[in-house]
Amino acid sequence: MTGTRLETDSFGPIEVPASAYWGAQTQRSIGNFPIGGERMPVPLVRALGLIKQAAAFVNAELGALDNNLAPAIMEAAAEVAAGTRDDQFPLVVWQTGSGTQSNMNANEVIAGRANEILTGTRGGKVPIHPNDHVNASQSSNDTFPTAMHVAAAREVNERLIPALAHLQAALAAKAEAFADIVKIGRTHLQDATPVTLGQEFSGYAQQLTDGIARVEAVLPRLYRLAQGGTAVGTGLNSPEGFAQAVAKELARLSGLPFEPAPNRFEALATHDTMVELSGALNVLAVSLNKIASDIRLLGSGPRSGLGELALPENEPGSSIMPGKVNPTQAEALTMVAAQVMGNHVAVTVGGAQGHLELNVFKPVIAYNVLQSIRLIADASVSFADRCVAGIEPNRDRIADLVDRSLMLVTALAPEIGYDNAAAIAKHAHTHGLTLLEAATALGLIDEKRFRALVRPETMLAPGR
Amino acid sequence: MTGTRLETDSFGPIEVPASAYWGAQTQRSIGNFPIGGERMPVPLVRALGLIKQAAAFVNAELGALDNNLAPAIMEAAAEVAAGTRDDQFPLVVWQTGSGTQSNMNANEVIAGRANEILTGTRGGKVPIHPNDHVNASQSSNDTFPTAMHVAAAREVNERLIPALAHLQAALAAKAEAFADIVKIGRTHLQDATPVTLGQEFSGYAQQLTDGIARVEAVLPRLYRLAQGGTAVGTGLNSPEGFAQAVAKELARLSGLPFEPAPNRFEALATHDTMVELSGALNVLAVSLNKIASDIRLLGSGPRSGLGELALPENEPGSSIMPGKVNPTQAEALTMVAAQVMGNHVAVTVGGAQGHLELNVFKPVIAYNVLQSIRLIADASVSFADRCVAGIEPNRDRIADLVDRSLMLVTALAPEIGYDNAAAIAKHAHTHGLTLLEAATALGLIDEKRFRALVRPETMLAPGR
Amino acid sequence: MTGTRLETDSFGPIEVPASAYWGAQTQRSIGNFPIGGERMPVPLVRALGLIKQAAAFVNAELGALDNNLAPAIMEAAAEVAAGTRDDQFPLVVWQTGSGTQSNMNANEVIAGRANEILTGTRGGKVPIHPNDHVNASQSSNDTFPTAMHVAAAREVNERLIPALAHLQAALAAKAEAFADIVKIGRTHLQDATPVTLGQEFSGYAQQLTDGIARVEAVLPRLYRLAQGGTAVGTGLNSPEGFAQAVAKELARLSGLPFEPAPNRFEALATHDTMVELSGALNVLAVSLNKIASDIRLLGSGPRSGLGELALPENEPGSSIMPGKVNPTQAEALTMVAAQVMGNHVAVTVGGAQGHLELNVFKPVIAYNVLQSIRLIADASVSFADRCVAGIEPNRDRIADLVDRSLMLVTALAPEIGYDNAAAIAKHAHTHGLTLLEAATALGLIDEKRFRALVRPETMLAPGR
Amino acid sequence: MTGTRLETDSFGPIEVPASAYWGAQTQRSIGNFPIGGERMPVPLVRALGLIKQAAAFVNAELGALDNNLAPAIMEAAAEVAAGTRDDQFPLVVWQTGSGTQSNMNANEVIAGRANEILTGTRGGKVPIHPNDHVNASQSSNDTFPTAMHVAAAREVNERLIPALAHLQAALAAKAEAFADIVKIGRTHLQDATPVTLGQEFSGYAQQLTDGIARVEAVLPRLYRLAQGGTAVGTGLNSPEGFAQAVAKELARLSGLPFEPAPNRFEALATHDTMVELSGALNVLAVSLNKIASDIRLLGSGPRSGLGELALPENEPGSSIMPGKVNPTQAEALTMVAAQVMGNHVAVTVGGAQGHLELNVFKPVIAYNVLQSIRLIADASVSFADRCVAGIEPNRDRIADLVDRSLMLVTALAPEIGYDNAAAIAKHAHTHGLTLLEAATALGLIDEKRFRALVRPETMLAPGR
Repeated sequence: MTGTRLETDSFGPIEVPASAYWGAQTQRSIGNFPIGGERMPVPLVRALGLIKQAAAFVNAELGALDNNLAPAIMEAAAEVAAGTRDDQFPLVVWQTGSGTQSNMNANEVIAGRANEILTGTRGGKVPIHPNDHVNASQSSNDTFPTAMHVAAAREVNERLIPALAHLQAALAAKAEAFADIVKIGRTHLQDATPVTLGQEFSGYAQQLTDGIARVEAVLPRLYRLAQGGTAVGTGLNSPEGFAQAVAKELARLSGLPFEPAPNRFEALATHDTMVELSGALNVLAVSLNKIASDIRLLGSGPRSGLGELALPENEPGSSIMPGKVNPTQAEALTMVAAQVMGNHVAVTVGGAQGHLELNVFKPVIAYNVLQSIRLIADASVSFADRCVAGIEPNRDRIADLVDRSLMLVTALAPEIGYDNAAAIAKHAHTHGLTLLEAATALGLIDEKRFRALVRPETMLAPGR
Repeated sequence: MTGTRLETDSFGPIEVPASAYWGAQTQRSIGNFPIGGERMPVPLVRALGLIKQAAAFVNAELGALDNNLAPAIMEAAAEVAAGTRDDQFPLVVWQTGSGTQSNMNANEVIAGRANEILTGTRGGKVPIHPNDHVNASQSSNDTFPTAMHVAAAREVNERLIPALAHLQAALAAKAEAFADIVKIGRTHLQDATPVTLGQEFSGYAQQLTDGIARVEAVLPRLYRLAQGGTAVGTGLNSPEGFAQAVAKELARLSGLPFEPAPNRFEALATHDTMVELSGALNVLAVSLNKIASDIRLLGSGPRSGLGELALPENEPGSSIMPGKVNPTQAEALTMVAAQVMGNHVAVTVGGAQGHLELNVFKPVIAYNVLQSIRLIADASVSFADRCVAGIEPNRDRIADLVDRSLMLVTALAPEIGYDNAAAIAKHAHTHGLTLLEAATALGLIDEKRFRALVRPETMLAPGR
Repeated sequence: MTGTRLETDSFGPIEVPASAYWGAQTQRSIGNFPIGGERMPVPLVRALGLIKQAAAFVNAELGALDNNLAPAIMEAAAEVAAGTRDDQFPLVVWQTGSGTQSNMNANEVIAGRANEILTGTRGGKVPIHPNDHVNASQSSNDTFPTAMHVAAAREVNERLIPALAHLQAALAAKAEAFADIVKIGRTHLQDATPVTLGQEFSGYAQQLTDGIARVEAVLPRLYRLAQGGTAVGTGLNSPEGFAQAVAKELARLSGLPFEPAPNRFEALATHDTMVELSGALNVLAVSLNKIASDIRLLGSGPRSGLGELALPENEPGSSIMPGKVNPTQAEALTMVAAQVMGNHVAVTVGGAQGHLELNVFKPVIAYNVLQSIRLIADASVSFADRCVAGIEPNRDRIADLVDRSLMLVTALAPEIGYDNAAAIAKHAHTHGLTLLEAATALGLIDEKRFRALVRPETMLAPGR
Repeated sequence: MTGTRLETDSFGPIEVPASAYWGAQTQRSIGNFPIGGERMPVPLVRALGLIKQAAAFVNAELGALDNNLAPAIMEAAAEVAAGTRDDQFPLVVWQTGSGTQSNMNANEVIAGRANEILTGTRGGKVPIHPNDHVNASQSSNDTFPTAMHVAAAREVNERLIPALAHLQAALAAKAEAFADIVKIGRTHLQDATPVTLGQEFSGYAQQLTDGIARVEAVLPRLYRLAQGGTAVGTGLNSPEGFAQAVAKELARLSGLPFEPAPNRFEALATHDTMVELSGALNVLAVSLNKIASDIRLLGSGPRSGLGELALPENEPGSSIMPGKVNPTQAEALTMVAAQVMGNHVAVTVGGAQGHLELNVFKPVIAYNVLQSIRLIADASVSFADRCVAGIEPNRDRIADLVDRSLMLVTALAPEIGYDNAAAIAKHAHTHGLTLLEAATALGLIDEKRFRALVRPETMLAPGR
């Protein structure tokens, strides 16, 4: 199937590769937008397939589509939804801001394939027309934002939350495994009173627990679909009940509780909920940056760093320094975090600039949100499996550091007062003494009482 | 009360203005941080007062504070909480990243005032000591993040949500008042199928409704307090039950359902929830930018713009162009939106960089979140009262534009097909005809049927 | 060449596809970083090839590489530089933050290919060893940042500046073509005093002129290369004169004036200059967003917008509204602008977080800067060719709007004063009069004098 | 002077405090914008004074202002420029986006004061009228952006660059003082080959040197003034030569080489150069974040951190941990960095959203840029004086760490090959040996040769 065939749209005929299922408008977009090369994200393409499948079903039910045409459309659309036709979606993100061309790409590929099913001939508009039949009761203006929500909701449920839960579990397992390891705490990167290594990891696990809750808090709004609003939100050219029926069918196909948006003017003209979702991803980026940075810091060394943790060694670390091993999983994760923070600004800028009945930054918003989801999910799993799971504490080093700490003096303050305790710490620091030596030198407390009060293992959770 | 007195801390004596209630550490911070001039936000200062009041009450209850000292501390702290001592908090945001100096500022002012109550002499550490008594059972590391949550939660409840609800109501009132005004829709800033002016405003109102819901979704996590963690999260030097009792007392004093954080290591070392809250404010910025920009655009003119709305005229608009009136409330609101988006990045950057047991970007995070809340709240009320409430539709202009629109042709597509309808629109556009003229010229539909189908008033909500 | 072969590194043996040129460390990275899918940008890969070619030449010259090995390395490296081996670089951005794995990918592919040249057998470490020979006198820590500067400098010179100049020329041509078209000016989106359409476009052209100057202002620092610093900036294991000689050879190969960085510790540990370059791209994003938004606004309509410009019609605009044409090139450009603003934050966040001798956000910084360059360049050319070049003024509409403007009253102010002029404008606005009618009705100026003063064509450049 | 007086504008009369110099439009703005409380920045207010002074001088010269009125205007304006009237500028940032109200504030205060000079009565419009005389030949639309450039240029020259140079000098002095201190290098926070402490500080000093160059690279565009463009860029109502003469007079008054903008349409409608300046400030934020973070990390301890540096102890660090001292100057500086990065986004968002002849995000852009300048300048000086100047190396600790490092093995690689050297490092790491012990145990090199090659003091700059 080499060579080309002619396809036509309201601008006239245009040559399309004979092997392609797409039609004139897709081909025109290829020619008109030679920008970058970032293709419309695959989850969004498949969501368009799912929507077209649901729409054909509902249109047939509601009498808006010939029952002889609907099955072929549904079959072809299901192929798009399943990923079989990913290669038929060559368009880039940097196209029309409504995503119309990608919606037409879906309409054309599904029509082209449905016509092949019905007639044996690929492409064209007969008997299935991309606009009149595949796009029946729809506009790009409601379909594309619906695809954004469907794609994001599926990626969140199928990819992101499981990945976050996986990392949460890995961190929580370490929190439990390390529950008895008493170590120096550090605030301002300066020595502070003791904590357990398990307590540190329990904080990380809590961040993930909260991060999942934050994403889940967005879902009710993400499940609201623009579909049924057609061109401007009024639903012109769609049958009564279409919005409800499509949402119900999409819910059935996906297993997610989609519903019609309560206000479809808002649903076309804004992407506030995508900005909100991006904000939840941004918090995850912040959380993951903290966790990965901490673990890198605790694993710094092997001989000139904090050296409290031994991180898994996955690969050689240096092209010049033999034997060097680096915290590469932490680095990948913090780079992902930087990207997600940047993506969030792109989404914010795009979300802020809608005009009247339509926001026309839809593809760039979808691209960034879906990339952020993918990156956080993949990097979280990799970090859990290739770093967290294999972390081992350097118990000797940890014990040594806690023993030498000056901040154990804090335990004396309730008894001898803040100012006296400060004098002991300063004296020890200046003269290189232990706290006990300094305390007795200054005559502020006797040894027996000191030993009774300054016990790291009792300083870990008295107030809880 | 001119002149100075001597106050001391572990660094030695230092001169303090005789009239000041603060002590040595506050004075030292004044000298050490001559940066900018942005003071610690007032809501945060008052939250510190509330916390100190609650802590003194609980400390006395739990036996961690002499019952003879507690009442004076509570009285002095209540003054700080009420705003009576705002002028005693001279420190800037750009200080230590834990906010320790502002916590000590509160400790010192309350001690200095309590000593005045008890002895008649302002300042000092006797009988009330800033650390041993006012700060009893606390650390800056749990107190300052608690103050951040208390301040933000109060500002959200008392200032932000009422302001958003006020703007929502103003927009919803216009949605109702304008429900019958049929106008041209615009997508891509190009003419599209009709909507009502009320539908447009209903979308704006929905944005506010959702925006309130987004902020409220953060509140459960914002009500969680770090207090009780003391220096590193373990609660060292605080009595059993302190965290629960303080949260309960703060809830009683504020009327908000504060509770202890489920993991106090997370609560000291991260400000993920403040980043989350900032993200919800960022969505509001995006929403408000859209709404204000739309209203400005619809009010553009008076003779060379879209001219569909008449905005209230509040002041002369130009120093050179006599009689000019500008959409200044929309401009103030969009400038606020830009600021909030920027603040969100500052919060994100600060939130991402915590180290081990403590995030030390606390003041900059608090400053930006509280500024964003204040700006959105104030600007929303001003926009509601000085712009939205006074908006009047230019009915003649609106009617004229909808009559001339080519996109009414969409109503023909279900009957004559997309391609034929497109041909009519193109013919009308090229030859400057009405749709009816073009349709009959091309022989694609007769006049009677055209008039039956192309009726703007029937194109507004068929699918709902 | 199916099947696999064994390659080894300090972690032991690993199976590699028999057809691949790469070795053990590349393969290990594939397994260790299943994240996202964004590959290391092609310009960076080719820059690595160029560097390896230059380094082999210089190493041989300086006696650091056997003269029998150098030619094969240079030949293989030149293939990478030319793009022949792009498919041999499968690694993703989300790997180690030093880019070590991609440097090793280059070392291994070049060694594997050079060994094939010399022995007929692909891959391996004999006679050419990836570290000892291809990477001789180098570390990833100086090579990768050098590649970042070389890649960015080439993309700026070969892709970005020509594209910007192309758009600048298109805008300047319109400024000249439209020089005599007097139109209404608009400030605050409200009618203001007249300008010419050419003056508006001259402002856009100036933005591009300045944008080019801003990028060029970064180039002196971008031409500074880290190479010669090796692992930590000291140049350990590199021969005397290596830095200078490599920069000179890279300058010869590329035609760009590369030179050694004045301080190689800064050059490894920071990417301030990449952040600076990203800042210049961010200004371009801001400029292009303004220009595209203005042109979209002036082209809004066709019947219900400002309608002053007719933009080229490149494709059907709507899947539901027949005959609709949208400003899609403007939309693609503004989406690119949003992406670049977001990328800039990712670069900033990555750039801010270096530690001691090395910044380990190198790949994410490179990825974003190179994407921003590519997107701005491509979208600028597309916008110039598919939008700007074809813009036509709607002269009748333009003339009609300027005639009706109330702000022509400004020309009266120097004669009758601001307050009187304001009274005329207000009277005309309130009563729907022309300015002349209002002026005479109020008796503030006679008709003859009015006509002498209020002439749009004289209000265009009196002060220049 | 209590009570009020009546002032009038085209909206009618309004009560103004009797003591105020301002008039009706300022008072109206106070009432219309009860938002936030951030006042228009002082440097901008003073720049408005300077402009009004220059404009009166030039207007008189060019015959556009009565010679009897000019001196009083110039005297009153000079008072504003000198800061004598700062308290007469009560307006907030969140007003009209053109800054018109602050321009009118200046016009009114200067008129009110000039009338007082001439008549003994404060305020009013006779004989000096705020619009007709003080604002003669000007519009807010050219005056306010001129004030933005004048204010920013003065702050950059008088505040920012001296502060950066001061910090650069402090860092360079340490680079020299620490030139001979050999220490462990760290990449990926893992042990690497040695550097000197002076080399590390030389990198920081280079960042400041480059940072100054980056700001200076913006100055040529910052010196270009919009003045002379009046309302829309055409210069309507300004005399021939006004733009040139005002720029010349402002240059004389300020000592800075101001000149007319080459394209005044660009100068009113965009703030690309302010965005560019903000970008240079953003790079400084990135640089300062790196420097402060490094110094904090090297100073971490005192007993459980890297402990290589002793930072000055300026104040008590903890309200609960006695004797604790924290890197507070580093924290203030990194908080400032976060703020500047956020401000940059606010400036970018505001800069991107201009419409046609005017960008109406002027006040928010000015506010953020001026705050960023102020914060970077103040914090840099404070950091230089209260941290960098007092840094002392912990020589024993530094020497101990470098001696134990495994990465000294790198010096063996040129002789025994990367793979053998890696084996030695791994063996030493696994078995807790010194490198020499591991090397001889593996029989890969003899002790004499080892000692000849592995000498940290020779590993510091071989390639330079």
